[in-house]
Amino acid sequence: MPVGFIQHETIHSIAGVRLASVAAGIRYQNRDDCVLIEIAEHSSVAAVFTKNAFRAAPVELAAKNISQGCPRYLIINAGNANAGVGDAGMLSALQTTQAIAAATHVESQQICPFSTGVIGEPLNADKIIVKIPELLAKLSVDNWRQAALAIMTTDTQEKIYSKKIQLQGKPVCITGIAKGSGMIQPNMATMLSYIATDCGVQVDTLQTLLKQTVATSFNAITVDSDTSTNDACVLIATGESKIQLEQCNADERDQFLLALNEIMCLLAQSIVRDGEGASKFITVQIQGANSYHQARAIAFSIANSPLVKTACAASDANWGRIMAAAGKVDDDQLDLSAVSLKINDVLILQDAQLVDSYTNAAGMAAMADDEICITLDLCAGDYKHSVWTTDLTHEYIRINADYRS
Amino acid sequence: MPVGFIQHETIHSIAGVRLASVAAGIRYQNRDDCVLIEIAEHSSVAAVFTKNAFRAAPVELAAKNISQGCPRYLIINAGNANAGVGDAGMLSALQTTQAIAAATHVESQQICPFSTGVIGEPLNADKIIVKIPELLAKLSVDNWRQAALAIMTTDTQEKIYSKKIQLQGKPVCITGIAKGSGMIQPNMATMLSYIATDCGVQVDTLQTLLKQTVATSFNAITVDSDTSTNDACVLIATGESKIQLEQCNADERDQFLLALNEIMCLLAQSIVRDGEGASKFITVQIQGANSYHQARAIAFSIANSPLVKTACAASDANWGRIMAAAGKVDDDQLDLSAVSLKINDVLILQDAQLVDSYTNAAGMAAMADDEICITLDLCAGDYKHSVWTTDLTHEYIRINADYRS
Repeated sequence: MPVGFIQHETIHSIAGVRLASVAAGIRYQNRDDCVLIEIAEHSSVAAVFTKNAFRAAPVELAAKNISQGCPRYLIINAGNANAGVGDAGMLSALQTTQAIAAATHVESQQICPFSTGVIGEPLNADKIIVKIPELLAKLSVDNWRQAALAIMTTDTQEKIYSKKIQLQGKPVCITGIAKGSGMIQPNMATMLSYIATDCGVQVDTLQTLLKQTVATSFNAITVDSDTSTNDACVLIATGESKIQLEQCNADERDQFLLALNEIMCLLAQSIVRDGEGASKFITVQIQGANSYHQARAIAFSIANSPLVKTACAASDANWGRIMAAAGKVDDDQLDLSAVSLKINDVLILQDAQLVDSYTNAAGMAAMADDEICITLDLCAGDYKHSVWTTDLTHEYIRINADYRS
Repeated sequence: MPVGFIQHETIHSIAGVRLASVAAGIRYQNRDDCVLIEIAEHSSVAAVFTKNAFRAAPVELAAKNISQGCPRYLIINAGNANAGVGDAGMLSALQTTQAIAAATHVESQQICPFSTGVIGEPLNADKIIVKIPELLAKLSVDNWRQAALAIMTTDTQEKIYSKKIQLQGKPVCITGIAKGSGMIQPNMATMLSYIATDCGVQVDTLQTLLKQTVATSFNAITVDSDTSTNDACVLIATGESKIQLEQCNADERDQFLLALNEIMCLLAQSIVRDGEGASKFITVQIQGANSYHQARAIAFSIANSPLVKTACAASDANWGRIMAAAGKVDDDQLDLSAVSLKINDVLILQDAQLVDSYTNAAGMAAMADDEICITLDLCAGDYKHSVWTTDLTHEYIRINADYRS
């Protein structure tokens, strides 16, 4: 069961984006597992992809195609990552994009493929190709939730958030979907996310916005420190609202950025809340660092520490593990001589000394919460960074070790 | 139970090194928990310490003292790390070294303190100080095994190895002890190791030898990626054999280096074999890398991956996880386009393509072994590095999450 899952009941459709999902039988039975997203002409599209050097073929092809112009169609399958199968992977990806190009009369470079699922098994493109007519027939602006369901692998909950704001007196919407905390079942790879707005945004601005918001959302989560081979996040701006972001004033641009960031953070956090075996939602908040890099490195070192994560699972106020995880960061400039440390509202260290008022009972009570916020202030500089993670439980081991692929 | 634990029956004493252990009641009852090591005058001593920025007070004091000259006494306690307690930590360490200095008529700077155990609890120096007369009375060259037992925290097995070689026609001995795969029980911190030889070695040479052999032994192991606040490794050369390493020929110097490396690797591997919840001993061997740094980063990325470790626990030939862990290393020069991958003797990938002869059954059979060797050849350069680790099991979670400190 996800931890403290937040749901949006109202999902706004985005003019200029139509979606369809079908059951292609790639791995799963009796459910949709294939999604087509159609993007109106003259839209802007930005994307970021996994930095894993062992990238899947569809990631290579999608990245190449998107660098040559805005795509018109995104084709996504769940159940097979089309990764680690050598040249057969690119062949399968190209067969799929060419078949969609032929059916829609656009260039095959305008189609971007995405895959998520098992690594190392060949993806039979025919299973997708045979469904193209059905996908095209089903395209609708109202299919966001169906798409969110169809891209799931072992997610226990679909991830979909939506927000409406007013810019220049007119409504502008942002809607996004995402899937799973990667690698949940053996070989299950991938975080995928697709976010669209009817605001008009030039491609360069859109790519900058995406990088900026990804840094504080999807790149600020970790379940088990493993980076998938297939991660991708796509941001679409159709302009159908007739509002152009570049023509808004600074306040309105900030409002849009905040709304976009909110949707991205909700999606990213929902992946953590639905992380494998998660029983707690943990925020690691680093303040007063000498650099952004330092704040980020310490935050991830704590968030990825198996000893911190098992302590959280056990509601054990084991703050020595937190400090040891902070200290192990490879950084000559790291100075922990003035740190303060809090778990939720309970102050433990100040000026690197245990505070007199601290009791183990108070620490235990804070750690017993479902939502744990670890705040470490280095009191050295002005930089801060937060990351979100889960605890490490028997259930994680059960999911990842007890069953074979 | 440790995995494939190797034992040496014959432990050679080292002339010039006397040891004693007593029960000081620091945390444990009915067992020795405090060790004094006396080093003969004119010996050489080298040491390396944890790079964790949250270093314990005894580590600070031992590092400072050893930089000012060779120590005559090492005092070690198990059960309390004397870490994370602010200024009280240094006070306690200084009280201990000054009391030993007064009793032995050496300078207090010639005493180095070491602590291992719970973080964040004050260490009562009086418990050690009151035992100094008993420790001094018990000093003997024959107490290596007693010392190995007394420095254990939650180790299930004492770690002690010894080797005799011939240099210039005369016997030279190396004996070493080590403790625990750190942080086994809540807050238990620290790997400690003490190795001595009766060979004569100048201090500078000794420090170089130690750094060289630590890189391929203690710094090549990982159980859970967490670096302790108290790690220390000390190498003593008494010269009592009347053989001086610098006067040996190149072959003999190599023979000594190999013997030292063998003892250090046995000690380091014994820590992994006795790692928390370990059911398998895993070697990750990277070959053909562009640099030593690259080989080491990939080896640790695989060895620390929870998904690789759970796959090993499940005997699941989940090679996609291995490649994803290799690929996530942050390295622009990383090229995985020509890799080959083997698990034990089973070839899986060649030229980055799945080999035709590979079957999942063969992979599963290899992974079912207690000793798993993952060999990844990047086929890009001449650098290689190996690290050793364990699998990630329910038992690890039980040890670290089910009980509170």
